[in-house]
Amino acid sequence: MRLLQDIGEFGLIRRIAKAEKISDKDVVVGIGDDTAVLKYKKNLYLLLTTDMLIEGVHFNKKATPFQIGWKALAVNISDIAAMGGIPKYGLVSLGLKKNTSLKFVDELYRGIKTIARKFDVKILGGDTVSSSKLVINISLTGEVEKKYLTLRKGAKIGDKIYVTGRLGGSISGKHLSFIPRVKEARYLVKNLHPTAMIDISDGLLSDLKRICEASNVGARIEQSKIPVSREAVSLQNALTGGEDFELLFTVSKKYNNLIKSAKFSITQIGEITKRGIILLDERNKNIHLKETGFDHFKL
Amino acid sequence: MRLLQDIGEFGLIRRIAKAEKISDKDVVVGIGDDTAVLKYKKNLYLLLTTDMLIEGVHFNKKATPFQIGWKALAVNISDIAAMGGIPKYGLVSLGLKKNTSLKFVDELYRGIKTIARKFDVKILGGDTVSSSKLVINISLTGEVEKKYLTLRKGAKIGDKIYVTGRLGGSISGKHLSFIPRVKEARYLVKNLHPTAMIDISDGLLSDLKRICEASNVGARIEQSKIPVSREAVSLQNALTGGEDFELLFTVSKKYNNLIKSAKFSITQIGEITKRGIILLDERNKNIHLKETGFDHFKL
Repeated sequence: MRLLQDIGEFGLIRRIAKAEKISDKDVVVGIGDDTAVLKYKKNLYLLLTTDMLIEGVHFNKKATPFQIGWKALAVNISDIAAMGGIPKYGLVSLGLKKNTSLKFVDELYRGIKTIARKFDVKILGGDTVSSSKLVINISLTGEVEKKYLTLRKGAKIGDKIYVTGRLGGSISGKHLSFIPRVKEARYLVKNLHPTAMIDISDGLLSDLKRICEASNVGARIEQSKIPVSREAVSLQNALTGGEDFELLFTVSKKYNNLIKSAKFSITQIGEITKRGIILLDERNKNIHLKETGFDHFKL
Repeated sequence: MRLLQDIGEFGLIRRIAKAEKISDKDVVVGIGDDTAVLKYKKNLYLLLTTDMLIEGVHFNKKATPFQIGWKALAVNISDIAAMGGIPKYGLVSLGLKKNTSLKFVDELYRGIKTIARKFDVKILGGDTVSSSKLVINISLTGEVEKKYLTLRKGAKIGDKIYVTGRLGGSISGKHLSFIPRVKEARYLVKNLHPTAMIDISDGLLSDLKRICEASNVGARIEQSKIPVSREAVSLQNALTGGEDFELLFTVSKKYNNLIKSAKFSITQIGEITKRGIILLDERNKNIHLKETGFDHFKL
């Protein structure tokens, strides 16, 4: 009998996406990007995304309820940012133990609302159920001007590859309090017109692979250029650690000289190639990597 | 220390709704109805809803994965129906054990897709995470013509109270395979212009209370008129059993004579009054009821 752990999270997503061929005149993007994209208003697309956080998987007992609430909305806002969009309306589903203290629930909502206010997101409802473990699912809408929509697909051979911020070590705390890169993404789509963009949720290499697969291209990354965060315990950690929630994007040569005008950290780490993902060490030698990122179902 | 079980599910929802005052020109309805309602296109509103189902709470080990998938989408479609709307696009978040068989996952998706096709709902993505218990959260959009939007609020003194179908005994199986009342709701909003409507998810009395609170009215129900399903073990079960997913709605006197033209089961069970919810027995005597329906957090 084949189990989920045999095909992994990405095998499962491929399996679902394959079976689900959408033909609908209002659907611009279905399964397979950071959010779904729907026709909406004259110059706007509607974005839809959802993320589930589970106790013991996405946070442990040490996380405060405020942090859990913050993170649950932040990961969704990050998905909207990765499309070049602006987050708008959220629905919160909460699975809570019956003996949860009201203080815990209030703090959890305070976390949600604090980041909601920061990004002008309105919480419009949701669902509350009893559960033996804390589960929180937020779904979020967003909108993006048609001209600014940026997908995973669209990277071209010769495009430079960039990341915002520094990578790795998120698990030591950043993953519970990170600021989604909406402001940065908006700057990028307005000024640098990225050909492809994604938020780094499962690790640099894993998410780069998604851009490459969607765009039908390859990539060459120079290890020495990767901006490793102070919290990262190793370079490997910066490559595959996951939950950085920085932006990974590709820019056409003609806009590369504008990168320096950005008022936030952007680092070029490589270039889009015809095929294959290659990581080069300081002597320009190939580095082979066994695992590329976090997979929920692999053991 | 006050616990969730002290205030219950509805206390929690009130607590959240109170703290969350939305002022946004595009929000028509926020927390407090079956779905959120947003401005959308010229003649249409956008509806947003979400529901979380957890193993051991909303289904047990006897439920097939097909049934679980079906129910997870059906409860959301039922919320859209209760607004008078048409379901459109869904996002599925799944928390699965690593050792789940692929067959189980395929069957679960077959359940989702079978009802999705039946109601022309498109699944546009979602999230998959590992979990020690099966959790499934679906969020669903819908749309409704502005003139057909029907809220919980709007019931007027003198309106008659109706339900579709028969109530009670859902737990013996119907809750896993029910057909959301979209067709029926669409007939109602087009022909009978209900002044208020809700789907019965937590029990007739509990959901009637919601209409009364939102509309600032009362209700008088005649026990003998309640259409009790064959599966109901008692009348109490039909009053408070929950998960019937039939429609409960109120109609102005001027449309009452059109009820009989409907080609599905509608039963008048009472009338909207000034205040209080009163249940009358066959001798027109008040019946006092301690509990009105299911509460996730009460012991």
